Amino acid sequence: MIEKITSPQNPGVKRVARLRVKKGRDAKHLTIVEGVREVRQALAAGLRFSGAYVCSEGVYRCPPEIVGELESAGIRVNDTTCTVFDKLAYGDRTEGVLALVEPAVRSLADLKLRDNPLIVVLESVEKPGNLGAVLRTCDGAGVDALIVCDERTDIYNPNVVRSSLGTIFSVPTVSCAGREAADFLAERGITTYAAVVQAEQFYYDKDWRRPCAIVLGSEQDGLSDFWLRNANEKVRIPMLGRVDSLNVSVSAAVMIYEAVRQRALGANMPGGGSKGV
Amino acid sequence: MIEKITSPQNPGVKRVARLRVKKGRDAKHLTIVEGVREVRQALAAGLRFSGAYVCSEGVYRCPPEIVGELESAGIRVNDTTCTVFDKLAYGDRTEGVLALVEPAVRSLADLKLRDNPLIVVLESVEKPGNLGAVLRTCDGAGVDALIVCDERTDIYNPNVVRSSLGTIFSVPTVSCAGREAADFLAERGITTYAAVVQAEQFYYDKDWRRPCAIVLGSEQDGLSDFWLRNANEKVRIPMLGRVDSLNVSVSAAVMIYEAVRQRALGANMPGGGSKGV
Repeated sequence: MIEKITSPQNPGVKRVARLRVKKGRDAKHLTIVEGVREVRQALAAGLRFSGAYVCSEGVYRCPPEIVGELESAGIRVNDTTCTVFDKLAYGDRTEGVLALVEPAVRSLADLKLRDNPLIVVLESVEKPGNLGAVLRTCDGAGVDALIVCDERTDIYNPNVVRSSLGTIFSVPTVSCAGREAADFLAERGITTYAAVVQAEQFYYDKDWRRPCAIVLGSEQDGLSDFWLRNANEKVRIPMLGRVDSLNVSVSAAVMIYEAVRQRALGANMPGGGSKGV
Repeated sequence: MIEKITSPQNPGVKRVARLRVKKGRDAKHLTIVEGVREVRQALAAGLRFSGAYVCSEGVYRCPPEIVGELESAGIRVNDTTCTVFDKLAYGDRTEGVLALVEPAVRSLADLKLRDNPLIVVLESVEKPGNLGAVLRTCDGAGVDALIVCDERTDIYNPNVVRSSLGTIFSVPTVSCAGREAADFLAERGITTYAAVVQAEQFYYDKDWRRPCAIVLGSEQDGLSDFWLRNANEKVRIPMLGRVDSLNVSVSAAVMIYEAVRQRALGANMPGGGSKGV
């Protein structure tokens, strides 16, 4: 490791602090990744790193292997004192390592889709934990891309990175306006299924084997008029009890895995349509 | 409303404080329900109340309607000062009302199941928020019962009540040992499907139209040896990305709604079996 940072006034410490703010992250095209598992996932995703900070003292106990893994990848690793690492780290769940990473995808134009893509569109998701949970499911299900429209949550918020278990680096994720997303999907012949509590048709009566996107609204307000007007079809999840909706990450998962199921089985599906992937 | 409580030394205040501890709740067969929506759901579920406390002052602004709703149901409502309500309420998300409520179901023997039940078994769930999220999905999907085995989370923990949006009162929920649950299910001919990351078969290749139970383990450790040995079948959710598992509430939802789908469609299912509900 190079020089150990012992002063909270060190320019590196100030640089990390500036990345705690969205404006700072946007200006530098960098975000902060914290935690052993998360840093490993960013490494595995082949992202460009712009340095890393560890603390091997006291409560943080950064595992020594992670330093080797970072340095083998040609990444500068600074050791720090506990006092300095306290300044660098966010929240109380820190494992003695954080890295500065450049996200792989910045706009819709950067997305590389399969022939028969499955896409998730989240409108105005408010809670970082919900966005992180959706990302984890998108990774598990092999979703091609997550598009966040009119974001209230910064998609590279450290709480999103953490709650996604680093899958924000494996799932291509883009933030853009609803109109841009709708045009992008329509131009590529991708059917949009909007999840709407009052829809007449159930999600499982639809053909998810064709190129399609699931569009979900915010926890509080559901989908905006824009998507209610512009989605190709509206679908709902049966609600058989007292509550009128599921958590947004749960709704997303139920529909995402129906698409996975239909695409895996390929046949015996309602609604006909061509044989899927 | 009866007498306004102005002293934090009031016996009612101390009574509520004792219910903040599991031992106190078990001794009195009572739990604390906080929040307007949650109290309404406990009322709608027809549960027995043992009093309620509101604060109509200052920041709490309890809606006056809720007092009328409680009193119409014959429940004693005490008004309190902000200082007293501060002592009564939990966390920072308080809406000026809390009630003491007797849970409807206490043991497996109290469960009333449909002819073709769908049951969820959660082993050693650690986070109240995950248990609450599973309850919300169970309510939405019309699950017959949730059985929590060897609980590390008290099922009536106020954080569970809150994150379940009160569905802990609409979904019959019981806490018991794994052996008791396995015997109860086996005696009733209910097939247990254990969610296991290494299982060979996918959940959607199984027949969920028969009486069945989904068994899920803790976030950290998965299922115990007991369930690995004693479940009738092991199933997994396809994991096509980098992470090796989904959030427990997401895994539960994906399988619960596959059962709902199969039961709604009834036909064209893999694995044969009789026509479902």
